[in-house]
Amino acid sequence: MAPFRLLIVGGVAGGASCAARARRLSEEAEIVIFERGDFVSFANCGLPYHVGGVIAREEELLVASPQLFRERLRIEVRLGTEAVAIDRARQLLRVRELATGRESQERYDALVLSPGAQPIRPDWPGIDLPGIFALRTIPDARRIRGWIEERRARAALIVGGGYIGLEMAENLLRRGLAVTVVEREAQVLPLFDPEMAAPLAATLAAHGVRLRLSETVLGFEPDPSGGLRARLSSGASERADLVLLCIGVRPETELARAAGLEIGERGGIRVDARMRTSSPRIWAVGDAVEVKDVVTGRYGPVPLAGPANRQGRIAADVIFGRESSFRGAQGTAVVGVFEATAACTGPSEKALRRAGLWGEEGPFEKIYLHPDHHAGYYPGAEPIALKLIFRRDNGRIVSAQAVGRAGVEKRIDVIAMAIQKEGTVFDLEEAELCYAPQFGAARDPVNVAGMIAANVLRGDARIAHWENLEGFPGLLLDVRTEEEVGRGRVPGAVHIPVDRLRERLKELPRDREIWAYCYVGQRSYLASRLLSQKGFRCRNLSGGYRTYLHRGGRVAS
Amino acid sequence: MAPFRLLIVGGVAGGASCAARARRLSEEAEIVIFERGDFVSFANCGLPYHVGGVIAREEELLVASPQLFRERLRIEVRLGTEAVAIDRARQLLRVRELATGRESQERYDALVLSPGAQPIRPDWPGIDLPGIFALRTIPDARRIRGWIEERRARAALIVGGGYIGLEMAENLLRRGLAVTVVEREAQVLPLFDPEMAAPLAATLAAHGVRLRLSETVLGFEPDPSGGLRARLSSGASERADLVLLCIGVRPETELARAAGLEIGERGGIRVDARMRTSSPRIWAVGDAVEVKDVVTGRYGPVPLAGPANRQGRIAADVIFGRESSFRGAQGTAVVGVFEATAACTGPSEKALRRAGLWGEEGPFEKIYLHPDHHAGYYPGAEPIALKLIFRRDNGRIVSAQAVGRAGVEKRIDVIAMAIQKEGTVFDLEEAELCYAPQFGAARDPVNVAGMIAANVLRGDARIAHWENLEGFPGLLLDVRTEEEVGRGRVPGAVHIPVDRLRERLKELPRDREIWAYCYVGQRSYLASRLLSQKGFRCRNLSGGYRTYLHRGGRVAS
Repeated sequence: MAPFRLLIVGGVAGGASCAARARRLSEEAEIVIFERGDFVSFANCGLPYHVGGVIAREEELLVASPQLFRERLRIEVRLGTEAVAIDRARQLLRVRELATGRESQERYDALVLSPGAQPIRPDWPGIDLPGIFALRTIPDARRIRGWIEERRARAALIVGGGYIGLEMAENLLRRGLAVTVVEREAQVLPLFDPEMAAPLAATLAAHGVRLRLSETVLGFEPDPSGGLRARLSSGASERADLVLLCIGVRPETELARAAGLEIGERGGIRVDARMRTSSPRIWAVGDAVEVKDVVTGRYGPVPLAGPANRQGRIAADVIFGRESSFRGAQGTAVVGVFEATAACTGPSEKALRRAGLWGEEGPFEKIYLHPDHHAGYYPGAEPIALKLIFRRDNGRIVSAQAVGRAGVEKRIDVIAMAIQKEGTVFDLEEAELCYAPQFGAARDPVNVAGMIAANVLRGDARIAHWENLEGFPGLLLDVRTEEEVGRGRVPGAVHIPVDRLRERLKELPRDREIWAYCYVGQRSYLASRLLSQKGFRCRNLSGGYRTYLHRGGRVAS
Repeated sequence: MAPFRLLIVGGVAGGASCAARARRLSEEAEIVIFERGDFVSFANCGLPYHVGGVIAREEELLVASPQLFRERLRIEVRLGTEAVAIDRARQLLRVRELATGRESQERYDALVLSPGAQPIRPDWPGIDLPGIFALRTIPDARRIRGWIEERRARAALIVGGGYIGLEMAENLLRRGLAVTVVEREAQVLPLFDPEMAAPLAATLAAHGVRLRLSETVLGFEPDPSGGLRARLSSGASERADLVLLCIGVRPETELARAAGLEIGERGGIRVDARMRTSSPRIWAVGDAVEVKDVVTGRYGPVPLAGPANRQGRIAADVIFGRESSFRGAQGTAVVGVFEATAACTGPSEKALRRAGLWGEEGPFEKIYLHPDHHAGYYPGAEPIALKLIFRRDNGRIVSAQAVGRAGVEKRIDVIAMAIQKEGTVFDLEEAELCYAPQFGAARDPVNVAGMIAANVLRGDARIAHWENLEGFPGLLLDVRTEEEVGRGRVPGAVHIPVDRLRERLKELPRDREIWAYCYVGQRSYLASRLLSQKGFRCRNLSGGYRTYLHRGGRVAS
């Protein structure tokens, strides 16, 4: 009897982890990986740092070689081999060796599609001019490095201010290029809410990266002085020696479509929780598939390495008869840009609004805070701007976003675990986390987030948000010190320092609501507790003056 | 009618947080803090770093001043005032001003005891000689700093190798002193398991800290050359200019005992989940009380700042009629020593054994792993030695310990949240955590821990532990490379590199069990999967050669 034959299309992330897991589950199966490119199992996420020279040698990006697959796992890897068609009825995969054009039919008992995604390359005029790159593979990185060196490139234009765009901004600057980032939205990091992305924009600007927000590229043309010129929607133009397209990826579904597999509404291959496609004996994993968002329940592509790896493992489990299923994706992500880190887990407010789930009286509430990343009395404490979204009805945590210089991704990871376990803000309040002065605080930022949110839910602290200030008919109350107010205030605010509040109650109106703020929201919380108990109607402006400075995504220090 | 009167004994951590929360809940109550010392709300945990000069100015340790309590919170703080007796029947607290000896009776409606704990000062001969200190308060730090400067102290002896002892070792070394640590147990960090404390001992030794393990101090005497001489149980003696006692703390319960409040078996004040003592109208919080361990269900003192703060807040909630309760303590803790970090959450194996809960066929299993703290292909990846304890029956996570140079406390924090939410190893396997190459890995150490443990529970990987190797009648199999074996191996092991295993199966016995190991346990996992499928009885030695090097707490690099 012929051995069980598992074929895998695509040997990076999901495909590679599927193959390795499959071998551990079955020593007898025949396992073959077909990879169109020249490398398997390479560190995609390291490419920007290789271009920037942080990861000096290309070999360091190779997590596993065909030789390792062969010798250690007895898995055959066919590089430079493209899967061109699936014959579902006969369980045959047609593959083509790119170098020779030679085709063959490969029998399978199970087929796993892990083709990944392709960088989006819009149909702009001049898009094929030399000097315009995307970064997805090792050869891409080679071409970009080569171009920079050969052309002595001095100016780079990055189209798209998402994760890879910003990582490339840092890395190209590191190589001495002047960098301009063009982003269609009014903010960088479109997956974040604008007020949370604002501090990162400030960091980029401080390092000399030019940001052109709310701008799109209309097309490219050769510049008379050499290089390229990009025409922008504002009418302006930008010259560059190098253009990098970082406007996202598109699931690679050609093979799946041609085979008649079901494709989801958002363009990825449809799979169930066991990573099965609509066709028996065919599984799909990684950037090419649509997965369920654990919070919103909606399906879409989640091009992240962690989920891809888990999916590959699950597909192998299922193929070899195990109970295993993918719980869905949370969209936990992090990006480091210069000294700043931004991280998130769960959907942004923007995403919830877009999905029609956010409303004034809707199920969600949010808070802002700016705790130090470790005890303030220990040198080097850095503030973290943190936003927590939770449900009003039961306190369930929905998502979090954070940006700062240290300890940022740690808090997001803890909250990610809390979300996974259906935790509430009360759980965050009660979390027992590591504390020594150089690592955290007796009240860790996670605890503080939980306390603030729990206070809101218990009715101890009614809050207001800066975006609702326009047209607010009540009194805006600044409870900071004279000195702080001297450094900047919100127009129209009445100033009474918190420590003087009890003796100056007479100055406050009883017929209008009062919205109080301080620098980060702590003193104004005390103020609003005090005023509420004295019979005033009062709300605390969440996040205080610091969040005010970031409102609307405006760049502020 | 007289206002509600809340008296608080002790103004640090739990007492201070209770007072502040109480004011936010009631603007009308009269709130008074009696503090025996000269400071309220100071950063106890920062004291070692103040002695070491990292926190340069004493004022930085003052989280809140009596003035702030008065002006912002309308809370009266009476420093230098000791609570001497409680008249429960009449609800009176007798207090004494230490400077004048003047006593007064203070009426209370609610009384919160937050007296903290006292450093243990054994009754050794010579214990009162000048130059022997403990570190608990700001005046203690002043005295130690003064002594070092005035005496030009050059050699320090630290008695006790726990958290504070090790922090002080680093900080005294930073000040140029030669440091010796005497520890009664055969390891540093007695709250950790010996094999997990071993890497930290290696770090200390590498920095020139002399460790005298399994040693106790018998007494002190003046040394003829000046300073002190400590006589040790081994017969040796140590000269020092400065001796620091870091052998733990004892709950301060004198006042509570005298008032007839119930005291627990482990010497702390007994309280319920609402922080109520055995007497109505009296609450107690912080280092003086016994709290329930959420994992073992046992009661004991947990002298940590985080729980103390939460308890203070809860006592205030309950006093002012809120539903609020303390969920218990997990014992999450972290210590940084030079470039190393050690952190834990939940009980150690040692603690479980001591409690009679650990046995060969008992409910618990453990695994070891040594993942990099971030993607190995990004420069600067540092291994983390991680130990995870979980239940065999349902996979529930019991505890974790970790030691390494970076990213250590992050993983413990995530696991702490998982434990809080009654998570399993399967949850760790599925966790979706931040990944970019400088922050984590597509398979974060937390995921890897979950995968390894889940493999054990699913029966995919039978494991063995090094401590059971003695007398093992089977075959010990080393599957590392020739080169690795050349650098050191376990006596008696047969060597077959994993990549050659399939062709050399004939060399292995079918009548005896095989225990396989590699450097960290990953290749030997593959080997044991392979061998099991080929009909061999095989186990994987958890943690590999790296854990072998740390076995029994032996110091190894």
